[in-house]
Amino acid sequence: MSRSEPLHDIAHLGNVELLTPKPEQSLWYFRDVLGMEVVHSTGASAYLRAYGDYATTTLKLTAAPRPGVGCIAWRATSPAALERRAAAIEAAGLGVGWTNGDFGRGRSYRCHDPDGHVMEIYYEEQKYVAPADKRSTLKNLPQKYPGRGVGVRRVDHLALLARDVAANRTFAQELLGFQLREQVRFDNGATEVGSWMSPTAVHHQLAYVVDVKGGSGRLHHFSLWVDNREDVLRAADILIEHGIFVEAGPSKHNNSQGFYLYSYEPGGNRVEIYAGSYLVMAPDWEPVIWNEEERGTGVYWGAELPESFLTYATPDVDAPPPDPAVKVPTFPVFF
Amino acid sequence: MSRSEPLHDIAHLGNVELLTPKPEQSLWYFRDVLGMEVVHSTGASAYLRAYGDYATTTLKLTAAPRPGVGCIAWRATSPAALERRAAAIEAAGLGVGWTNGDFGRGRSYRCHDPDGHVMEIYYEEQKYVAPADKRSTLKNLPQKYPGRGVGVRRVDHLALLARDVAANRTFAQELLGFQLREQVRFDNGATEVGSWMSPTAVHHQLAYVVDVKGGSGRLHHFSLWVDNREDVLRAADILIEHGIFVEAGPSKHNNSQGFYLYSYEPGGNRVEIYAGSYLVMAPDWEPVIWNEEERGTGVYWGAELPESFLTYATPDVDAPPPDPAVKVPTFPVFF
Amino acid sequence: MSRSEPLHDIAHLGNVELLTPKPEQSLWYFRDVLGMEVVHSTGASAYLRAYGDYATTTLKLTAAPRPGVGCIAWRATSPAALERRAAAIEAAGLGVGWTNGDFGRGRSYRCHDPDGHVMEIYYEEQKYVAPADKRSTLKNLPQKYPGRGVGVRRVDHLALLARDVAANRTFAQELLGFQLREQVRFDNGATEVGSWMSPTAVHHQLAYVVDVKGGSGRLHHFSLWVDNREDVLRAADILIEHGIFVEAGPSKHNNSQGFYLYSYEPGGNRVEIYAGSYLVMAPDWEPVIWNEEERGTGVYWGAELPESFLTYATPDVDAPPPDPAVKVPTFPVFF
Amino acid sequence: MSRSEPLHDIAHLGNVELLTPKPEQSLWYFRDVLGMEVVHSTGASAYLRAYGDYATTTLKLTAAPRPGVGCIAWRATSPAALERRAAAIEAAGLGVGWTNGDFGRGRSYRCHDPDGHVMEIYYEEQKYVAPADKRSTLKNLPQKYPGRGVGVRRVDHLALLARDVAANRTFAQELLGFQLREQVRFDNGATEVGSWMSPTAVHHQLAYVVDVKGGSGRLHHFSLWVDNREDVLRAADILIEHGIFVEAGPSKHNNSQGFYLYSYEPGGNRVEIYAGSYLVMAPDWEPVIWNEEERGTGVYWGAELPESFLTYATPDVDAPPPDPAVKVPTFPVFF
Repeated sequence: MSRSEPLHDIAHLGNVELLTPKPEQSLWYFRDVLGMEVVHSTGASAYLRAYGDYATTTLKLTAAPRPGVGCIAWRATSPAALERRAAAIEAAGLGVGWTNGDFGRGRSYRCHDPDGHVMEIYYEEQKYVAPADKRSTLKNLPQKYPGRGVGVRRVDHLALLARDVAANRTFAQELLGFQLREQVRFDNGATEVGSWMSPTAVHHQLAYVVDVKGGSGRLHHFSLWVDNREDVLRAADILIEHGIFVEAGPSKHNNSQGFYLYSYEPGGNRVEIYAGSYLVMAPDWEPVIWNEEERGTGVYWGAELPESFLTYATPDVDAPPPDPAVKVPTFPVFF
Repeated sequence: MSRSEPLHDIAHLGNVELLTPKPEQSLWYFRDVLGMEVVHSTGASAYLRAYGDYATTTLKLTAAPRPGVGCIAWRATSPAALERRAAAIEAAGLGVGWTNGDFGRGRSYRCHDPDGHVMEIYYEEQKYVAPADKRSTLKNLPQKYPGRGVGVRRVDHLALLARDVAANRTFAQELLGFQLREQVRFDNGATEVGSWMSPTAVHHQLAYVVDVKGGSGRLHHFSLWVDNREDVLRAADILIEHGIFVEAGPSKHNNSQGFYLYSYEPGGNRVEIYAGSYLVMAPDWEPVIWNEEERGTGVYWGAELPESFLTYATPDVDAPPPDPAVKVPTFPVFF
Repeated sequence: MSRSEPLHDIAHLGNVELLTPKPEQSLWYFRDVLGMEVVHSTGASAYLRAYGDYATTTLKLTAAPRPGVGCIAWRATSPAALERRAAAIEAAGLGVGWTNGDFGRGRSYRCHDPDGHVMEIYYEEQKYVAPADKRSTLKNLPQKYPGRGVGVRRVDHLALLARDVAANRTFAQELLGFQLREQVRFDNGATEVGSWMSPTAVHHQLAYVVDVKGGSGRLHHFSLWVDNREDVLRAADILIEHGIFVEAGPSKHNNSQGFYLYSYEPGGNRVEIYAGSYLVMAPDWEPVIWNEEERGTGVYWGAELPESFLTYATPDVDAPPPDPAVKVPTFPVFF
Repeated sequence: MSRSEPLHDIAHLGNVELLTPKPEQSLWYFRDVLGMEVVHSTGASAYLRAYGDYATTTLKLTAAPRPGVGCIAWRATSPAALERRAAAIEAAGLGVGWTNGDFGRGRSYRCHDPDGHVMEIYYEEQKYVAPADKRSTLKNLPQKYPGRGVGVRRVDHLALLARDVAANRTFAQELLGFQLREQVRFDNGATEVGSWMSPTAVHHQLAYVVDVKGGSGRLHHFSLWVDNREDVLRAADILIEHGIFVEAGPSKHNNSQGFYLYSYEPGGNRVEIYAGSYLVMAPDWEPVIWNEEERGTGVYWGAELPESFLTYATPDVDAPPPDPAVKVPTFPVFF
């Protein structure tokens, strides 16, 4: 296999760790409002899953002084693929080294992207086996549809901020083997504002967008999938009835064609409820590039995205530092 | 890359040729009722596309004495992948040889599956470039949403009948590199009734189901995707208002979780309007196997599939042979 | 106002009492699976409501040896209208007399229809005032959207069986002032199989269908509204995941155009989750009449309704009489 | 029947005349983009209908120098009701007199509301009888679902501007017998900003909103119903693909709970595609009143309505007067 052929070493986004200064409220948001399940907890972290995820856990909530994204884990397509990626990343000087993984996954290679986000790649994963009361009547569904709150189905993607979008996009393309799907480029193409990429047919599982505040390692949003646009509309009602701040949507992006709903979980991280978009199966996909005018406000319909969508991210560089006297609670063991 | 790693040589289902003894009515069905576009025609064939397909054409309608499936074309992930597949298939004794392709695609390797269905693999493909009046306001959509009839978005999958499901499933797994997603196995697993497979994250792009009449090279159904279940419900109204026979649905399969609607196009081929289902991104997916009891009637909700769903396929082996005195019209040039 | 003008004395279906030999399981079905709220309970009855109902209660569950429908309450449009209806019904010999009403409503006039179903008409009604934790963020919504289970919005209609459909239909038209919307008539119109009627723009709030078993006072189904067809599809998943028997649907009736899903609540009564249909605002609506052929199996799409849809009703005349040794539990006080 | 009982003399909104300086483009918008049918035309007007309307025509497009609303026709519930309303309006000094009606309806009583909008009340109406090619396979549907463009189902409501909302609201309540459903009142209730009313269970068929520019007889929007929120989302794509200006939505109002999409038809009138909302069947409905804070920007979710939603209406008092040299084309006869 020549190097010029596309890599297929990364299978999909595996697990995302979100940091939260309000762990109990964040847990309430993901479990009671969004309908995720808690499968495990330690002193400082709770491990959750959506009912359609085949892995035991896809979201880790960790108590921390400030919100943001912790470790982002990608599943490799094979043990050999994991070794190849580890070697390539190490050679590029972005490696940290091997770890024992985490709850739900085995040996992992830790690295960071050029902007400083922490990532791990792993192959061994614990498949979810539902206990009797959560077993679905559908043999091909890992867990019963919960009928609680929004009912998100699976983890979809992650949007990260970066000071240098091009450098991070190149990392994802060359070292992770992601295919570039869409870009926003301003100034006649000279300024790369954002890049959307994926290792699979899902439109994007990773986006890098420029950090207008010059921070590093920050999170724009974490996105969870529902099957129907109606589920997104229903989610808007549920979020508002629960007093959650809805920042934007439900509406439709031009970029990605995704049907979006953005809210802030109580810890401060932006979370998207997402449906629609489109699959990309073309092996020679030509990235769609939007300039200032074409991109507009990033929406296909109606209202502009609010200013905060461009300026707010976690951790919030404009927020005062956390009060060291306030102790962030850690999670009790829930089951 | 060792042989034990999964192949990624086939990118997706590319083009399906349907044979029809009523070409004008079939064209009306796909163009006016389903909302596809005609992009090309020759004496005997019309080439169509759905608005979301990136390729110039994904469906070829060919006038023929009897309905059924003609050439099934798969796109390779690279020129090298095409060569690898051609070599492997030839070595397996299923090859026919290289062709010049067809409208919309280049050099192709022709073969047949063990059951005799004709297939081609190709890499070179003509991307669709919309004329001004069909250009979408969405830069990432190949063609304007037509707002005509059902409005199918893209080709999704194909279900073929086979006398020996295992042999054909093995062909698809080993020679095409498809991943096995689900199976129906009766008699304590001894009888392989059907197998659903895919080269991509889409749940299945190819299914083999046992031909209960012992025919060969027959088609069970051809499936077209819409984005929302509401679109399937709306399609049911449209089909019925147009006098199209609706065989089953809208309803939900247990196998694949697909939300289905089956009708017969005027030429006699079964066509599915399809939404929902689920994506598979796990590199080590364990096929879901249904036995007699679990599979039941193949539906998750309510009404059983009708007897015809099991017994009817094209060409219909129970139909009288075509009258040689009746000349099948060929397509006029439409534009 | 001359008698030839339409009556507007009945405003809408107010409260339906369902009898259940399994009160705890029936309560679980309506509260936990369908998402209704319990607002009151006595020794033998629980009073429930759907989140969009403006009245305090619209469903009364009463422990009883056999399932079926108890008292069916209709709200009058004014105190004078109530008096007029009471006088007319009394004059027709169908009156029982005045009662003190029930939880949630005041003085009521009790009667029975010709088939023996018990009905009450009332005007005074206790509007629902949500406690703080159930108050919606929408000022025009009586109660917060629960986000629990199906989430039915409001009581929609009731279908009753009758030995003599014409006599009961005439009662509803002449004594209650309902408008006839649709009918099924067989034998060149000679046999009135069913009649669908309403006192409001809602397509039907009361249907009489012939009791093929010659019973009396029986219930065919009780119907609850959801806003979207997607909610009905989602309900199907929820019912099945909860082990509830789904008899038919989701699918679309030709009569009423309603999008239906029929299940049996644990006590045995057939309950419909319902959306779609159409409003009738024409003052001179001409009833739509379906003969054998037009009516077909009562569905617009696909699969026929099962035999049980025609033969099963509550109480089930084919069931053995209840064992007098088995004591039906009564409801504990829940709050 | 005492006067204190509610009136039921008006059945529903019957026909709305829209004025357009671009009649051909307006016709294209309603027929080709929204999917309405043209049933009749004269020199200056075209008469249209939506597929679910039982009347022959519900929308009249009239060529005029400036956009706006022409005659608004309400159907009475009976001939006697028509006489009663005519007498009451005449007594109130708002009558104009009897006319011969218009295409599709008989003798009509013409009046104006206090703000000067022209209205007619009528009883005789020509029911639509579909020609063979437009006959639906559903016996209870007046016309085949067109499968063309948006596919609006029926006329829903009308929002008018008025200098004195209270005076016009009182007219609708007392002289037309409409029930008040919701209000926006600012300044501790002293300023009536808007009132939503209906003669039927539909939430509102007539709204009066204050004319911030002090005009008279102006139109805020004309609203057409679709059955599902998905249809509204789909409409947004269709409008944008046709180059129609989308002013706001799809999104959800807090007032009325309606799911809205506002665009301007080519003649300049604001048209809403509408679904959702809620029915009111309570005879003693207490109007829901929103103050400044509760009403907010009039949306339940996300983005504010744009400034133009408050300031733009037709005719546009800020637009220059029409050029007398430009002749407004009149409609050719279309069939």
